[in-house]
Amino acid sequence: MKKLINGTETVLGESLAGFVGAHADIVTLGDEGKFLRRRNLKRGKVGLISGGGSGHEPLHAGFVGLGMLDAACPGQVFTSPTPDQMLAAAEAVETGGGVLYIVKNYEGDVMNFAMAAEMASGKVATVITDDDVAVETSTYSTGRRGVAGTLVVERIVGAAAEKGAGLDALQALGQRVNGQTRSMGVALTSCTVPAAGKPTFTLGEDEMEMGVGIHGEPGRRRVKLATADAIAEEMMGAILGDLKPKAGSEVLLLANGFGGTPAMELYVMYNSARRILEGKGIKTVRSLVGSYVTSLEMAGCSLTVSLLDGDLTGLWDAPVHTSALRWGV
Amino acid sequence: MKKLINGTETVLGESLAGFVGAHADIVTLGDEGKFLRRRNLKRGKVGLISGGGSGHEPLHAGFVGLGMLDAACPGQVFTSPTPDQMLAAAEAVETGGGVLYIVKNYEGDVMNFAMAAEMASGKVATVITDDDVAVETSTYSTGRRGVAGTLVVERIVGAAAEKGAGLDALQALGQRVNGQTRSMGVALTSCTVPAAGKPTFTLGEDEMEMGVGIHGEPGRRRVKLATADAIAEEMMGAILGDLKPKAGSEVLLLANGFGGTPAMELYVMYNSARRILEGKGIKTVRSLVGSYVTSLEMAGCSLTVSLLDGDLTGLWDAPVHTSALRWGV
Repeated sequence: MKKLINGTETVLGESLAGFVGAHADIVTLGDEGKFLRRRNLKRGKVGLISGGGSGHEPLHAGFVGLGMLDAACPGQVFTSPTPDQMLAAAEAVETGGGVLYIVKNYEGDVMNFAMAAEMASGKVATVITDDDVAVETSTYSTGRRGVAGTLVVERIVGAAAEKGAGLDALQALGQRVNGQTRSMGVALTSCTVPAAGKPTFTLGEDEMEMGVGIHGEPGRRRVKLATADAIAEEMMGAILGDLKPKAGSEVLLLANGFGGTPAMELYVMYNSARRILEGKGIKTVRSLVGSYVTSLEMAGCSLTVSLLDGDLTGLWDAPVHTSALRWGV
Repeated sequence: MKKLINGTETVLGESLAGFVGAHADIVTLGDEGKFLRRRNLKRGKVGLISGGGSGHEPLHAGFVGLGMLDAACPGQVFTSPTPDQMLAAAEAVETGGGVLYIVKNYEGDVMNFAMAAEMASGKVATVITDDDVAVETSTYSTGRRGVAGTLVVERIVGAAAEKGAGLDALQALGQRVNGQTRSMGVALTSCTVPAAGKPTFTLGEDEMEMGVGIHGEPGRRRVKLATADAIAEEMMGAILGDLKPKAGSEVLLLANGFGGTPAMELYVMYNSARRILEGKGIKTVRSLVGSYVTSLEMAGCSLTVSLLDGDLTGLWDAPVHTSALRWGV
C-alpha cells in the first residue's frame, strides 16, 4: 500500500486537521472532531447536515459553507459516522429553523442518522439520496445507492435554505431533486482502504467494473475495457432510460472523477456524454467536471444527469462558498 | 494502459472540446484548436499567455479567465506547443497593451516561446518560471524546472494585469514572484503517456521518487516509502533551505496533487508541511490544496511555498474567475 500518511490510525484526524487549517475562513472543527461546521451560522436558517464514511472527499466536508451544508460528520474511511456525531452536529447548527439531514442510501448511514433524529430534541427531517441506477440493491444498501447526485441535492437545497425556505419545503425540494437525478459509474482500478492495506477488489489489465459503487461495490458486470464513447453510451443509456427526460429538457451534466482519473479523461467522458444528450435534444445548461465524490484513489468516473426545471437553475447558480464549490462570492 | 479515451490520436482534441463545452461562459477555442482564450477580453490590458505540454490539467487551460490568463496553448501530452500556436494566441489577445508569455523552464517551451516572441509584430515580454528545487538540471531543462509555483505567478500577475499594470511592471512582478517561490515533489507511482502506452518509469512496491519532475523526470533519489511527516520534512527542508524565509514571514502554502492522489492524503501532507512552517515561526496566511499542476494519473504530490510580502496577498485575493480557481466573483 502506497499512501502519503503517517499511519492508518491517524490519517483521518490529520487530514481533518489539515482541512480546517487550510479552510479556516470557512469551517471549524466541532468538539472532539465529531463534525465540521460552517463558521458563520445564519440564525433561524434550517441547518443542513450530511455525512458518511470518509474517503469520498471533497464530499461532504468540502461542501460545508454558505449556500450548501452547515455541518458534515466524517466517519472512518468507508464507515458510517455514529449517531452521537450527527446529534452533536445538529445541536451545534440548530438556530431555530430545525435541521435537515441529507443521507446517502447505505444501511449504516440511514440507520445512524435515523437514531440521531430520534434522539434530537429539536425538529429534524431527512432526505435520502439514491441516484445510482447501476443496481437495485448492493453490498451496503437496500435499494439504490446514493452517489454523486448527492452533491446536486446538497447544492440546490443549500441555496434554498440560504434564501430562508422552511424545513418542510427543503425536505420536499431535496426529495424532488433526488427524484430527478440519476448517476452511474465505472471503475478501471480498485481503491485501497488504509486500514485494509490491500485493494478492495481486483480487475484484470483489460477489465473494468461497469456500474461500480463508490466503495468499490460490484456493479452490473465486469467487462473488457471499452472506448470512452462506448462507456458513455452504456452509462447514459441506463441513466436516460430510467430518468426519461423529454426532448427539450434542460439538465445539469456532472462528469465526476473517482480520485485517480486525470482531468483530461474526465473532459473526454464529459464530451461523449454531452453529445449523447445533444443527440436526444436534451440541453446541457449547467456542467460540472472534476473529482467531487471520490473513492480514494480509484480510477474511473461517474456521470450524473439532473433535470433543471422550474427554479432549480437559479438555485444552482446562487452564491456558494465552500472549499470545493465556490461562485458568486 | 487503462484510460477513458477513444484513442491516443483523438484524446487531446476531444478533451479540449469537452473543456470548452463545459466552460463556455469563460473560454472559447481559437482557430484550429491552437489555443484557448478568455471569452471577454479587456481592451488595453496586457495579454497574459501560457502553455506547455498537456497532461498537467488544470494547468494551463483551467487558469484562463478574468484575473488570470488570457490564453493557453496546449501541446500534445508532455510536448511543447509550437511557435505558431503561441503567435496565434498573441494575435488573438493583443488589445493594445502588449503580451506577456509565462513559460515553465523546459527547453522546448522556452525555445518555442522565444521563436514566437521574435515573430510577433507587437510588444512581447516573457517570464520564465523555475521554482523546483529538487535538481539543478534535468531531462528536459537546463536549470531548475518550472512546476506548481507557475500557478502562483499566473494568479498574481493576472490580478495585477486586470488592475491595469503595464507590460514591464508585470514582467518584473512575475520574476519577483517566481524568485520567491520554491517547490518540490515526490512520486509514489508513474504516469502513462497515452501515446507511449506504458508507464514512464517503474517504482518498486515500497519505493518513491523524491524530487520527481512533473513529466516523471528523475528527482534526487529513489528511496523507500516513508511517512508523510518524513516526506514533508525532506521537501520542506529543501524548499526552506533555498528560499531562506525569515521568522515572521507570511507565505502561501500549496499542497498539490499529481493526479492520482486522494484529497485525504493531500490534507495530511498539507498538515505536516504547515506544522513545519509553524515550527520555524513562518505564518501560513494563504493556502491551496488540490490537484492543480498534475502529471496525468501519477500518485504523489508537491509542496510549494511562496513569500507573500508587500502587495502580493492582496493580488492573490483579487477576484479570479477561471474553471479551476474562482473567488470574489
